[in-house]
Amino acid sequence: LSGLAAVSQGSSIDDGLLIVTVATEETDGFRRFMRSAKKYDLDVEVHGLGVKWEGGDVATYPGGGQKVLLLRDGLKDYKLRDDLKIMFVDSYDLVFTNGAKDILERFERLQASIVFSAEGFCWPDESLASSFPTVKSNEKRYLNSGGFIGNAKEVVEMLNHLDIAPADDDQLYYTQIYLDSSLRHQWSIKLDTRSEIFQNLNGALGDVTLKFMGTHSYLYNIKTGVTPVVIHGNGPIKAEFNRLANYLVDGWTANSGCQTCKEDTITLKEVKEDDYPSVLIALFVEVPSPFIAEYFQAVTALNYPKNKIHIFIHNAVKFHEKDVTTFLEAAPESYLSVTTVSPNDNLSEDAARNWAVDECIKKNCNYLMVIDSLVQMTNPDTLKILIEQNRTVLAPMMTRVGKLWSNFWGAINQQGFYARSEDYTDIAENRRIGVWNVPYLTTVYLVHASVLPNLQQAYTSDLFDPDMAICSFLRKQGRFMFVTNRFNFGHLVDNEHFDTKHLHNELYQIFDNPYDWEKRYIHENYSKSLEDGAEISSPCPDVFWFPVYKPIFCQQLIEEMENFGQWSGGKNDDPRLAGGYENVPTVDIHMNQIGMEKHWLHFLSKYVQPLQQKVFLGYISDPPRAIMMFTVRYRPDEQPLLRPHHDSSTYTTNIALNRPEIDFEGGGCRFIRYNCSVLATRQGWMLMHPGRLTHFHEGLRVTKGTRYIMVTFVDP
Amino acid sequence: LSGLAAVSQGSSIDDGLLIVTVATEETDGFRRFMRSAKKYDLDVEVHGLGVKWEGGDVATYPGGGQKVLLLRDGLKDYKLRDDLKIMFVDSYDLVFTNGAKDILERFERLQASIVFSAEGFCWPDESLASSFPTVKSNEKRYLNSGGFIGNAKEVVEMLNHLDIAPADDDQLYYTQIYLDSSLRHQWSIKLDTRSEIFQNLNGALGDVTLKFMGTHSYLYNIKTGVTPVVIHGNGPIKAEFNRLANYLVDGWTANSGCQTCKEDTITLKEVKEDDYPSVLIALFVEVPSPFIAEYFQAVTALNYPKNKIHIFIHNAVKFHEKDVTTFLEAAPESYLSVTTVSPNDNLSEDAARNWAVDECIKKNCNYLMVIDSLVQMTNPDTLKILIEQNRTVLAPMMTRVGKLWSNFWGAINQQGFYARSEDYTDIAENRRIGVWNVPYLTTVYLVHASVLPNLQQAYTSDLFDPDMAICSFLRKQGRFMFVTNRFNFGHLVDNEHFDTKHLHNELYQIFDNPYDWEKRYIHENYSKSLEDGAEISSPCPDVFWFPVYKPIFCQQLIEEMENFGQWSGGKNDDPRLAGGYENVPTVDIHMNQIGMEKHWLHFLSKYVQPLQQKVFLGYISDPPRAIMMFTVRYRPDEQPLLRPHHDSSTYTTNIALNRPEIDFEGGGCRFIRYNCSVLATRQGWMLMHPGRLTHFHEGLRVTKGTRYIMVTFVDP
Ligand SMILES: O=C(O)CCC(=O)C(=O)O
Ligand SMILES: O=C(O)CCC(=O)C(=O)O
Ligand SMILES: [Fe+2]
Ligand SMILES: [Fe+2]
Ligand SMILES: [Mn+2]
Ligand SMILES: [Mn+2]
Ligand SMILES: [Mn+2]
Ligand SMILES: [Mn+2]
Repeated sequence: LSGLAAVSQGSSIDDGLLIVTVATEETDGFRRFMRSAKKYDLDVEVHGLGVKWEGGDVATYPGGGQKVLLLRDGLKDYKLRDDLKIMFVDSYDLVFTNGAKDILERFERLQASIVFSAEGFCWPDESLASSFPTVKSNEKRYLNSGGFIGNAKEVVEMLNHLDIAPADDDQLYYTQIYLDSSLRHQWSIKLDTRSEIFQNLNGALGDVTLKFMGTHSYLYNIKTGVTPVVIHGNGPIKAEFNRLANYLVDGWTANSGCQTCKEDTITLKEVKEDDYPSVLIALFVEVPSPFIAEYFQAVTALNYPKNKIHIFIHNAVKFHEKDVTTFLEAAPESYLSVTTVSPNDNLSEDAARNWAVDECIKKNCNYLMVIDSLVQMTNPDTLKILIEQNRTVLAPMMTRVGKLWSNFWGAINQQGFYARSEDYTDIAENRRIGVWNVPYLTTVYLVHASVLPNLQQAYTSDLFDPDMAICSFLRKQGRFMFVTNRFNFGHLVDNEHFDTKHLHNELYQIFDNPYDWEKRYIHENYSKSLEDGAEISSPCPDVFWFPVYKPIFCQQLIEEMENFGQWSGGKNDDPRLAGGYENVPTVDIHMNQIGMEKHWLHFLSKYVQPLQQKVFLGYISDPPRAIMMFTVRYRPDEQPLLRPHHDSSTYTTNIALNRPEIDFEGGGCRFIRYNCSVLATRQGWMLMHPGRLTHFHEGLRVTKGTRYIMVTFVDP
Repeated sequence: LSGLAAVSQGSSIDDGLLIVTVATEETDGFRRFMRSAKKYDLDVEVHGLGVKWEGGDVATYPGGGQKVLLLRDGLKDYKLRDDLKIMFVDSYDLVFTNGAKDILERFERLQASIVFSAEGFCWPDESLASSFPTVKSNEKRYLNSGGFIGNAKEVVEMLNHLDIAPADDDQLYYTQIYLDSSLRHQWSIKLDTRSEIFQNLNGALGDVTLKFMGTHSYLYNIKTGVTPVVIHGNGPIKAEFNRLANYLVDGWTANSGCQTCKEDTITLKEVKEDDYPSVLIALFVEVPSPFIAEYFQAVTALNYPKNKIHIFIHNAVKFHEKDVTTFLEAAPESYLSVTTVSPNDNLSEDAARNWAVDECIKKNCNYLMVIDSLVQMTNPDTLKILIEQNRTVLAPMMTRVGKLWSNFWGAINQQGFYARSEDYTDIAENRRIGVWNVPYLTTVYLVHASVLPNLQQAYTSDLFDPDMAICSFLRKQGRFMFVTNRFNFGHLVDNEHFDTKHLHNELYQIFDNPYDWEKRYIHENYSKSLEDGAEISSPCPDVFWFPVYKPIFCQQLIEEMENFGQWSGGKNDDPRLAGGYENVPTVDIHMNQIGMEKHWLHFLSKYVQPLQQKVFLGYISDPPRAIMMFTVRYRPDEQPLLRPHHDSSTYTTNIALNRPEIDFEGGGCRFIRYNCSVLATRQGWMLMHPGRLTHFHEGLRVTKGTRYIMVTFVDP
């Protein structure tokens, strides 16, 4: 690469417009710029590519003199091209939203030889402010050097008029020329104070609004009523500019959705699995995580050849060691490699994450895929989809189900923390679908290996936690981070109140993670009963039978109860009850004894009550009330049966927790007035029957094994 | 009649025993005496019959000298009959309990020429007490003149020994002789201090006890261990003696029951109805009387030819005038005569009762039958039975159902008021059946016309109410009053709390007169539902149907409601309810609005709850609770129907008060979940159905007329 290179070939030269820019690196911002130029057939000459940048950190400090020097050198031959207008623009933080004809027309209308973009801040020497000609209140008074256009002759003359060093400020250079009123008149220099061509966004985000027209997207300046064509995210608002740029250049419009999504992608369709890129999947279990079994199952279930996967696991939670073991046992030898860091290794999170980066580099991987333990990656194609989307840092969007809590931020404040962008909820709730340039992502993302060498030790920071550290690092590098919501990839679990003192802690997750709880525990046919015209099984008159729980719930509830162990004596005197007396006592454990009372009441309200309404028309009791909810244990040598009785309920639910003929013999429930028995009870199915008046019933004798049922007296 | 007459011919003369007595009148007591003599074949000579009594009131005052004079005169010829023992006894208040052989044996054993009966009071001159020989503590020291036995010679000599005037005291006469120790020894006079022969009862009621042996009844003296044979109710204890005498002389024994009942009876069997005795039935309505309609109906229903009946009615209660009218209209011209005294005549009760006596005499009746308005004479043969029993004053025993309150007293205190006799409850509760001599009767009784001339104005007294007055009068005359419980004649109503402020006051009598209430209102087949194996109608699943009320209840409840008239607006806002809001309002009147809430709750407990237990096995709720109990009115132009709903009840009762097709068209109750309607509702039948969960229901549209139902939400 030399300092001079024609990079984009459009057709604007034919119309008399040449775009020039200075870029020493091909950053993600540069590529975005070039895409916009290409989109509008703008010929762009790039100067300085590969040259060492000596112009300072121009986003926040003075500097950039090197740009003038590179242009002076690069444009000298155009001095006599009076057929040509030359437009200089920054490239890392700038896009075009229209082509040469439009730009030239606007330039013509401004009746000047050179037009500079204008902004509201007088930078870098505020003392010069009063020297600028005054403007109307809706206009910008000060010169910005990020964009200008002029006749080739005057532009070249201007670039050569004064001395400048690389670290001097380019904007000050042009400002001095402009404020020299004889020069200003000699070269007929004007500022684009109304943003007829150039829109500088620093301090002007409130002046503009995004507009869509068909497949076209553009900015509209509501203060001056014009539609600028050169959009420059100058100053410290890069994240906001990136956000706007998601839409600009026809990237996304209301009518046609995401158009950039389909660009710059790759496909694995034609690729043989053996030739698939290799991926290091880094699994981080940093906190106690509900539904971690499903988390690991999703990783196992990924639709990607295991012989292209290295596994790296950092588990910081002792409590989860058995889950890691279970995961590894599920696919012991099929991965390319497995690296495990256990709680005993006492490795900090940032070190672990850095290690994963190093490991990926070491293993010559093509991608690093980070998946934290709070992720439920229910879409097994996620990895493939992300690879094919072909962005260097790309997260599959995930949220806590039904919550705005997600794995990305739409904006960031000055301190680098969370801020909500205008489009955040639309994206998080999938009303806007696309691949979104965002300032922060976390928990689950794919990183192209090309980036990794730059990221070594990047998770470590004095100021930030590892995720914020790496994102801050990437932002500083001008690396774009994307999040895609083009597919449903899965969701995040809520671990904020995860209580791990039980045997089966997920049993208690109905409040925190209702979606996962339901998925794990609620019977797959539960909702069939609620469909219009559903045929509901009725084994006895006004007794209804519903599939409610999966066997795993039944099994875990039994285990939870047996683990708790304090079965009642089955005596009339029962200190657990308000009255101290139970008329028809069972050997049981009440839900409040295992701390599940509130959860069970919620289950009643959410799952039982709609079923009740389905079968007992017109009875509305929401939420259902219950005091008595208990698991009963029948055994031949303990309490084998329950004598005829009524329940203290309007209706009773009776869920079979285990299986007749297999786990026990005998048992069942007999409704005496109807001479009708339910013997072949079904694990996880719930009997629902009136409690008080009509359904005098008894628990039949268990002759072998142990029968468990979960009984609730609803609306006592 | 002369002063001397042999009245009873036995065979004791052959054994050497002659009984003599003095009686100027043949009182009921005298007849009882003679019956006992006859029973044991004792020859009795009666002296003084028809002679004017000049001996004073010997039951309480000194006197009786006339007896000595009559005997002196009557027995003079027996002086030389040394084959003969003579026994003198009183007759009005005395009975024998054995015959001559037994008496003579006992006399022999006492080794005396004359034996006087003995008592514990020294009468009439107490100052003589210390002159009597002392006796053992269980013996009686003083002479009683009511009975003695002796050799004919010594007896005649003794009767002639001293002077005596008719009004002198006979007992003092004999006492003087006895206390003259030379005479005592000369004639060998002894006192029967241990009651070997004679039992005087005054002050000695506690010494004796009734005993039965087979068909034989006798007194046993528990102090001396002997069985006296001459039982004398001396002094002011006539009522107690009468009571004992019910049993004595084999009158009633535990084994053979009442034997006197069958004696001295007459029969109407062979008598043509035209020859039946004529009866004046005197009906007294002195107080507001519940179930007076049934009272009059019973009189109408009497199984006795109306052309032998005079009716006399004294109605003192304005409120009952329509009932009297109804009664008279029922049989207007069939009675011999009808005399009516109405409230407007302002006649006092005693005057009215005296009038009835006079009327009966005037009409030449054979009997006076008094029936007060508190009598429910359910046995239509009562009058015939009483006539055939043939006692001069005779009441059919009646009690308040299930109470000890009756129309007779078993005993009486010194002041003439109620006292309870030992056998009162056995008689009142029909454990002892018979015809009982009692000191007081009231409310309903038959009086033989022969007594009436003596009873003129007898109901009037300064001291007593009319009933006590007449009874006191009869007792003084020595007239026995009998009550018979040989048959069930009917019962008395309780008017103590009779509240007459309603239209149909009997509706409210479930507490005071539950028997009559039930009889009038409860459906004749009500209790069939409670029989073992009863087939209970079930028009829809778990909906049961019972006959509960007679049409009269339904009709009267409707009228009571319409009379009250404050039908609710059928709006949701209902100030009568605790919450002020009714979800499914009807046009109705609540039971508490007509003051029938407590009554209805009692009905639920007594009548509904057993039915409920019959059909809803194992549900026990006694007493049933209810807050909502109301009569609903459906009309096409008012509230014609009730939309689908549940009730605030465990079960609901719904009683049809009137008739489909006749009183209204449309209507009925539909149970939506079972697609089952009860259209042909039956007046007085109660639907019972679960309220809350299973039996979503609606009241169907009434298209014509008015439909009334009585609904109760039981156990809300
Ligand atoms: O054993 C059964 O299924 C009946 C249990 C039952 O009725 C109860 O717990 O109340
Ligand atoms: O009209 C009927 O029979 C039903 C009345 C009813 O359901 C009610 O009053 O709650
Ligand atoms: Fe039960
Ligand atoms: Fe109802
Ligand atoms: Mn700059
Ligand atoms: Mn710039
Ligand atoms: Mn006397
Ligand atoms: Mn006497």
